[in-house]
Amino acid sequence: MKRITSKDNPQYRKLKQFASNSAAARRERYAILDGVHLCQSYLEHVGHPALCVVSQTSQYHAEVSEIIAECEKGNAQCLLLPDGLFRPLSQVDNGVDIVFLVLKPVYDTLPELVQNAVLLDRIQDPGNVGSILRSAAASGIRQVYCSVGTASVWTPRVLRAGMGAHFLLEVFENVSLETLIETSKIPVVATTPYARSTIYDIDLRSSVAWLLGHEGGGISESLMERASDRVVIPHAGLMESLNVAACAAVCFFEQMRQCLSGRK
Amino acid sequence: MKRITSKDNPQYRKLKQFASNSAAARRERYAILDGVHLCQSYLEHVGHPALCVVSQTSQYHAEVSEIIAECEKGNAQCLLLPDGLFRPLSQVDNGVDIVFLVLKPVYDTLPELVQNAVLLDRIQDPGNVGSILRSAAASGIRQVYCSVGTASVWTPRVLRAGMGAHFLLEVFENVSLETLIETSKIPVVATTPYARSTIYDIDLRSSVAWLLGHEGGGISESLMERASDRVVIPHAGLMESLNVAACAAVCFFEQMRQCLSGRK
Repeated sequence: MKRITSKDNPQYRKLKQFASNSAAARRERYAILDGVHLCQSYLEHVGHPALCVVSQTSQYHAEVSEIIAECEKGNAQCLLLPDGLFRPLSQVDNGVDIVFLVLKPVYDTLPELVQNAVLLDRIQDPGNVGSILRSAAASGIRQVYCSVGTASVWTPRVLRAGMGAHFLLEVFENVSLETLIETSKIPVVATTPYARSTIYDIDLRSSVAWLLGHEGGGISESLMERASDRVVIPHAGLMESLNVAACAAVCFFEQMRQCLSGRK
Repeated sequence: MKRITSKDNPQYRKLKQFASNSAAARRERYAILDGVHLCQSYLEHVGHPALCVVSQTSQYHAEVSEIIAECEKGNAQCLLLPDGLFRPLSQVDNGVDIVFLVLKPVYDTLPELVQNAVLLDRIQDPGNVGSILRSAAASGIRQVYCSVGTASVWTPRVLRAGMGAHFLLEVFENVSLETLIETSKIPVVATTPYARSTIYDIDLRSSVAWLLGHEGGGISESLMERASDRVVIPHAGLMESLNVAACAAVCFFEQMRQCLSGRK
């Protein structure tokens, strides 16, 4: 394991800049995975990282030792830092000090909509985006398409909320959802408080693409008019809308229920 | 409308201390509602605030003017601050400057479980707690019971995520959930990834109390063994769990579906 002890080491300075400047990080080919759980998920579902970084203290932590051993088995570079140098690399307070630097997946082509999918139209809150990815992966959805203006998915907060869902999904960013919907081979179901049909009225036993919109403003008009179905989650009482990640979970699992039971 | 222009004014200093010190705020009888939407909801569903505070700039904002007029109609005190003095009172960036100071509801007795309810066991993330309150209110649930260790519900982040749900619910804090469950008149349904029954297997057409647990550790053992039912939300693929607020929404709306359709 390589040790760095100086804050002026060029490799360390680059890492630190990367971890602290999210705009720069968004443009990079790499993402930082912060904490034991994300690193374990990555090893399990994707493979070895470009770089594994741990601190003086955390190297003796049982799960960290296992991760280091696994990285070394795969010839991934491991880096040991004094606790004080590690701190700026992590956004997790009181966590166990470990981060992976990993290559973001790159897709050469944008697949057409032919299987269950989620379309995110300018969802801004990183916690919401991460929670939606997690619910999508848990319900067996494999593809997520994000418009320009949706929170960048490979940022620390979305990764943390996603709890490893990123490694089970294909996530396409900066997608023209208009074009995608126009060429869709499956129904595109838009969720909106203003629909007359409910999610319980429509048949979800075949594949659909779920279209979810901006936290305040909802789905843009140009997307709404391209959707095949508009549905509402019925509400009782005076609270008229759900958080978008809650709405997503209700939709994905209503589809799961219909598929499991074989009936609407 | 009363104007304060000095940062040394005692009423202003008290307000500022209150807004910036969340530990102190938790012990207070008052809560701060931040932003147009929460203030409007409060006026609509509860009544007039103890105090309405706006800034030099926001006083001319159309919705703020309406809120001020409504407050003055109800003889609620309104306070005008220079923009610079208002800023420390709000946690919302780029929002419209308005806060209400309101009395938190006080309940003399803790009602027994006889109608649909939610029990929160040490849910820590304010965004999760707020989203759960919002989903509960949207699905017609009226009562929420929070254990010691659950995020305080009358804090700015929970209020913001709740989007006004606080004003439609009775929320009881620091509750001994063990005692509550032992005297329950309705089934208490615990959600856990380790259950054999799914939420689609059980009959939710009568009232239940939903028991939801800590983000990492789940429901405590002493509560789990007191629950009448243990259920899982089925998952597909390799992602094994949902965010707790997503899980809550799926549960509440499966109950809604069964009640609307009249069948499991």
